[in-house]
Formats: sequence, structure tokens, C-alpha cells
Amino acid sequence: MRVISFEGHGQSGLGVMADEATFVAVQEIAPELPNTLIEVLQLRDGIDHIRRALRPGAKAYRLEDFTLKPFLQRPNALWALALNFKSHIAETGLTTSLEYPQIFLRTPASFVGHAEPLLCPPPELARAYDYEGELGVVIGKAGRHIPIDHALEHVAGYTCLNEGSVREYQIQNRQFGLGKNFEASGAYGPWLMTADELGDPEYQAVVTRVNGVTRQRAPLSDMLFDVPSVVSYLSQGYLLRPGDMIAMGTPGALRPASGDVEGQDISRQYGPFKTPGLVHMHPGDVVEVEITSLGVLRNTVAADAPATYRIA
Amino acid sequence: MRVISFEGHGQSGLGVMADEATFVAVQEIAPELPNTLIEVLQLRDGIDHIRRALRPGAKAYRLEDFTLKPFLQRPNALWALALNFKSHIAETGLTTSLEYPQIFLRTPASFVGHAEPLLCPPPELARAYDYEGELGVVIGKAGRHIPIDHALEHVAGYTCLNEGSVREYQIQNRQFGLGKNFEASGAYGPWLMTADELGDPEYQAVVTRVNGVTRQRAPLSDMLFDVPSVVSYLSQGYLLRPGDMIAMGTPGALRPASGDVEGQDISRQYGPFKTPGLVHMHPGDVVEVEITSLGVLRNTVAADAPATYRIA
Repeated sequence: MRVISFEGHGQSGLGVMADEATFVAVQEIAPELPNTLIEVLQLRDGIDHIRRALRPGAKAYRLEDFTLKPFLQRPNALWALALNFKSHIAETGLTTSLEYPQIFLRTPASFVGHAEPLLCPPPELARAYDYEGELGVVIGKAGRHIPIDHALEHVAGYTCLNEGSVREYQIQNRQFGLGKNFEASGAYGPWLMTADELGDPEYQAVVTRVNGVTRQRAPLSDMLFDVPSVVSYLSQGYLLRPGDMIAMGTPGALRPASGDVEGQDISRQYGPFKTPGLVHMHPGDVVEVEITSLGVLRNTVAADAPATYRIA
Repeated sequence: MRVISFEGHGQSGLGVMADEATFVAVQEIAPELPNTLIEVLQLRDGIDHIRRALRPGAKAYRLEDFTLKPFLQRPNALWALALNFKSHIAETGLTTSLEYPQIFLRTPASFVGHAEPLLCPPPELARAYDYEGELGVVIGKAGRHIPIDHALEHVAGYTCLNEGSVREYQIQNRQFGLGKNFEASGAYGPWLMTADELGDPEYQAVVTRVNGVTRQRAPLSDMLFDVPSVVSYLSQGYLLRPGDMIAMGTPGALRPASGDVEGQDISRQYGPFKTPGLVHMHPGDVVEVEITSLGVLRNTVAADAPATYRIA
């Protein structure tokens, strides 16, 4: 089952994909359910409430007529992993513990939904605005001190995630802080695919494309810390809650093809680590993150407003 | 004006302190206002709506009959600063940029309210559970690219904050991650004091007491980065929102008095940096963070549940 959050034509709510192009509105098939995914996940039986309400003949809406929103809105925590693929560790030249995952947080406002614009900082602020294709793991059932062999029972499903990062800010000091939390700098979607449908994500791959050129591709089995071990680790200190998400980290850059001038010319790179095959995101770029068997998150990059004072 | 979030006797909502022991309920003097501080701050004129509704003769409730809650609930961002006092930098032996503040995030669930129990991890997980007395800055008015000389116009007010930290987890890898986000490991309160009442926090001091012994005391003018510069910095990348908070960092330990065996005996310390005058928090301790002229946040430490699997 693929669950979306949609908006448009004066409507908003949860939907379930009926096929590749259409969805049914949860509010129409199950008007007794709450209208946000976090609230549904908080119910006993969680997302199964939606599954049970599905039946043939429900009215189908065309996906292209609506906007997809980040379906988690404002959970308690959006966890993220740094340096969780050996290929990314190698290209950055950074070190990380092999015993404990490297964890930081992002705010809800740092993420947009599928097809919403990603905001590229104005060049006078930063130039190294980078994609990070990742698996997003959505918690379905609360738990504390979760054993590794029970961890996947706490996962509602998975999504594609672009953990967009502003490198100049990320390295201004020891903690990543603002560089991982620029306004609308990341994205997730297009949907939550339930865990039963995707199966074990270890068998899938993450792929990132910029303007059609594949820039990252790695099997998810290459992760240093897999989903069960990270779920278990976080729950040692923190009650994982329905609607929390974990961004599992990004792989390194693919070697650029011989004719790929942009990917080969590292003099065009402004970030702290320069590596062949890495390109920054610029206004107008189309960036895709695919998790195989799950779907493709696609966003166009737009220029953020100039760096002038404004009161919102 | 001092604004609280109260709960008890089947009621919950915002209150305004009438004197040291009583408060009036905002819902009774201004039933048209929303019932959460973030929603009030989001209104045009924000907290002034509450101020205008105050009048003599409103029913007063006794503070001691109610529980105080974290008054921000779930804002988009709870920012925090690492190493923002020279005395704390010196005692840790760590380095930090003098040009850019060191920023990380905490989740709402890592904080409790005034007089609610702080949770000490079970000793098999961690022993270096430390207080950090800090100034909390609450954003009132949204803004982006805020110039330093306009920054205080975006501040609704201030609070006392205990940025409780689990050192063993904080140092497991490069990013603080979980060690700064243990469940109910920190606190803020007892109230939001509006900026007009406190004035410039540079003229105040932060004081931390454990079981009546003063362990931290520093003028807020000792901060490496002051409130306006941090507000301005964050707004370069992020739209600061009403109800966001910034924890401004903690000072170093005071030298222990000659008869203070606990404070002098650094062999009792389990953390990564050992310094005279630092004591860890243990179940039963009473920990106070005072911001002078603002108030005292007081919490008793309780033992968190043992590290056994539970589904919440």
C-alpha cells in the first residue's frame, strides 16, 4: 500500500494510490479516521485501519491534479545518519565510529514533498548545495529498548528522501546545525510504501539522478548500520514514536562517464570535499531519488529569495 | 508578563502569573484566543493579545494546585548551542569556531516542564547525566535574514532551561545525536517571561544549583555569541518561526568549596571531561536553573525505567 498526503481543489488529506496515476481519498472511504498520517499511525492497528477500508469502486482522483505534501507534517523527531555508506566515508575523507551510528536531526521545515520546489540558497550565501539520496524509514509503533530482532515490527514503511545539504554551513563548526536545515532544502516522498509491500529494504538500491544523469547508485545492503540496528540504537535513549522518520544516510558519487564534463571537472565544486561525479544542485535542475521497487521522488530546484531581511 | 502552560483538575491551557503564587487562565479572560502559545504567537500582535485582555478581578488559581507543562509543545525547531561560554570550552578542552556558533537540535520530547521529573538513564546505559543551565530564547515573530540590530524584535521572551545531556552517548560519534535527546532529559520553564519585562538578557546571570549547592554561575554577557547574533545567524538559512526556541549554551563548573567532597572528587565522574565542581545528576537530586530577574526552574530527578523492551 502506498499512502500519500495530497492538497488541491480545496481538499487536503490522506490518499492511497490505486494505480500509477490515481488515488482514492481516505476521508471518503473511511470518514471516521483522522486526516493526518501521524494520527492514523497513533491508533491501535495504525495504518491497517486504512487497508481495511479499501474496496473496489471508490472514487479515483488523478495524481497530476493535486500537490503531494510531506506526509509526516510535524513529527517529534526527524533523525538522520551521517556517513553510513563506506563509499561516502571514503569520498569525504572523514572518520566515523564503526560501533555507533552518527546521528543528527532535521526540522520538518527543511523538507518539501514530491514535486514541490527545493530551494537553492542564493550564491552569495552558499554554492555547495548537494543532493543526498537516502532511504527514509517511518516508525509506525512506539517502542523503547527495541531488540534488533523486533525492530522491523516498529516500522510502518519507507520512502525516498533527498537529504539536501548546504556544505559551507554544515562545516562552519563541529555540529552540522544549520547546514542540514536550510529552509526547504530537502524532500521526501512521493509516498509511504508500507513495509509489507517493500519487504526488507536491504534487497533494494538507492539511485540519485540529476537532469537524467545517474550520480549515486548503491545497494542498501552497503549501509554500515542497517535499519534494525539504527531503530534499536535510537530506542535505547528515546521512545520512538509513530510518525518519526530516520534518514539512513547517502552513498558516494558514481565515477563520471568519459563524456561527462560537468561530473569530471572538480574545479566547479565549492564544497569541503571535492570528488569526481559530484555536482551541486542549481536552480532549474531536476533531481530524482529512487528507491527501487518503491518509487521516484522528483523535485525541481528553484532559487530561494535573495538574502534580504523579511518578516514573514 | 509571565506566561505559563498549566494542566490539572480537568483543565489545561495558557495562564498569566498574577503574583508569585497565583495565575489567571487566558481562556477565561480571552476565550476567543487559541489555547496554545504557538498559536497565540502566530497571530498578528502575538502575545499582546493576552496582555490586552488582562484586567483586575479575574479569577486567580493557585499555581501549586496545577502542573506546569513545556509551554511550546511541538514547535518546528528547538535549536541549541554547544560551547558558547569560554569557561565551558576551557573545562571540556574542546575547540569551537569563534566565527560561527555551534548549533544542534533537540526534540520536544527531550524536555519536561517545571517541577516535572527529569529522567536519569539506568546506570547500565550511562552514568554521566549532566545538567546544563541555560537561557532559553523564544521566537515571537517570523523572520529571514534578520539583521543583528533587528534581532531582538523577533524575540517574544525568555525562559530558564536545563539542557540535560547524557555524555556517554553524546561522544559516541561526531554529531551529538542521541546524547542530547534522551527522553525527558531536559526541562524548561517555569514560564515565558516577555522580553519587555526581562529587558536585555546580557544584564542577567545563569545559576545552576544541585541539592542547594551552586554548581554554575555566569553572567550572560560571557556568552561567545549573544542572542542577536545567533538569531541573525540562524535566519540566514532558516525562517525563524513563532514558538521556535534557542538554548544559548551553558557555562563551566564553579570551583568547589573546600568542604565540598562530592564536588572535589573527580573520581566520581564518568564523563569524557572531568573537572572539579561538576557532579552528575542522580535520582532524587533537586536541580534548579535560575535566570536572575526571570525565575527558577526546579526539577527533581527520577530514575528512568530499566532498559527492557516495551511497546508504548
